[in-house]
Amino acid sequence: MSLVENLNWRYATKKMNGKTIPADKLQYILDAAKLAPSSSGLQPYSILVISNKELMEKIKPIAFNQGQITEASHLLVFAAWDHYTEENITSVMETTAKERGLPVDTIKDYKTRLWGMYSQKTEDWHFNHAAKQAYISFAMAIAAAAEQKVDATPMEGFDNAALDELLGLQEKGLKSSVILALGYRDEDKDWLVNMKKVRKADELLFINLN
Amino acid sequence: MSLVENLNWRYATKKMNGKTIPADKLQYILDAAKLAPSSSGLQPYSILVISNKELMEKIKPIAFNQGQITEASHLLVFAAWDHYTEENITSVMETTAKERGLPVDTIKDYKTRLWGMYSQKTEDWHFNHAAKQAYISFAMAIAAAAEQKVDATPMEGFDNAALDELLGLQEKGLKSSVILALGYRDEDKDWLVNMKKVRKADELLFINLN
Repeated sequence: MSLVENLNWRYATKKMNGKTIPADKLQYILDAAKLAPSSSGLQPYSILVISNKELMEKIKPIAFNQGQITEASHLLVFAAWDHYTEENITSVMETTAKERGLPVDTIKDYKTRLWGMYSQKTEDWHFNHAAKQAYISFAMAIAAAAEQKVDATPMEGFDNAALDELLGLQEKGLKSSVILALGYRDEDKDWLVNMKKVRKADELLFINLN
Repeated sequence: MSLVENLNWRYATKKMNGKTIPADKLQYILDAAKLAPSSSGLQPYSILVISNKELMEKIKPIAFNQGQITEASHLLVFAAWDHYTEENITSVMETTAKERGLPVDTIKDYKTRLWGMYSQKTEDWHFNHAAKQAYISFAMAIAAAAEQKVDATPMEGFDNAALDELLGLQEKGLKSSVILALGYRDEDKDWLVNMKKVRKADELLFINLN
């Protein structure tokens, strides 16, 4: 099936059946998330892969008691850098240069220019910028899950500060951004499963400037 | 080819050859962008589809004279709502209810709860939230382009305010968020085409909580 067919197949699953997704499918989804592009290649986020049932029970009340949190096989929590640092940027860029067999010096000008820009921005800008990159990875995970016929529920409805505290994200320089619950739909009990997928009409979504 | 194979094939093309992408491939990419999920299904953004060469020439200096702006076949500008309004939210939700054959009343409680939350947030929060949704759509366009073997360059390096002014986005309640240049790689002249794709090691990107 093509990406468009997969995107038509998927929906924001409201009720999951608790079944576990196979390790190879999970790995595939994580591979896609990892391959997502990001601004300057920094991948300024971590992805928490949670299958611990006790932990999922603790997350549930933080996420307004939404059932998918514990009915899911795995939760992916996309947590973005709370801010960029020159050290973080340098570290990623140096690794990239080394992997490409280039002298680390090659990154210097680009890094200096980038940090010159980022260092003038607010911490709120930093986090939002990093979170946007995380959303690209999040989207690739959604597309990959659909390709694997694994259901996925994108979830923004949770208390970010409480989740950060539960997962010890602050100490890691991270802030939770969005959750993807992975599992399998409970067809009999999910009110959304047979609803029409609705998207904006082309004339409302697209502006053509030919 | 699978999504993961497509993501390995793609790269942030630095030099394009000016060739035009066929209408059916463009349409496919837009279909994928349209099918992207968004928070509460609001799709709080527009996608400007630009192939007008004069306009692309005007955008180029706004985007630090990056060559892909004019070497591309099409530019997609993802422009997010500058803020949510109760009217905007109601309009999208009512359309969805109608398309699903549900009474419009069914949305009332959900809408009231959502607006109760959004109305307390800053305008900056609104835009960033909307922009994150646009990034999901942007990511689906990237994946779709790769599937179609159309090259794509994600571009954040431009003067947002200047682009907003050029495209008259403020009057539309929109702010530019990110550009995707679509076209074909110039293999002989693109320094990045044969470079190794580098991503973070698993142990740096993933945090497993089993």
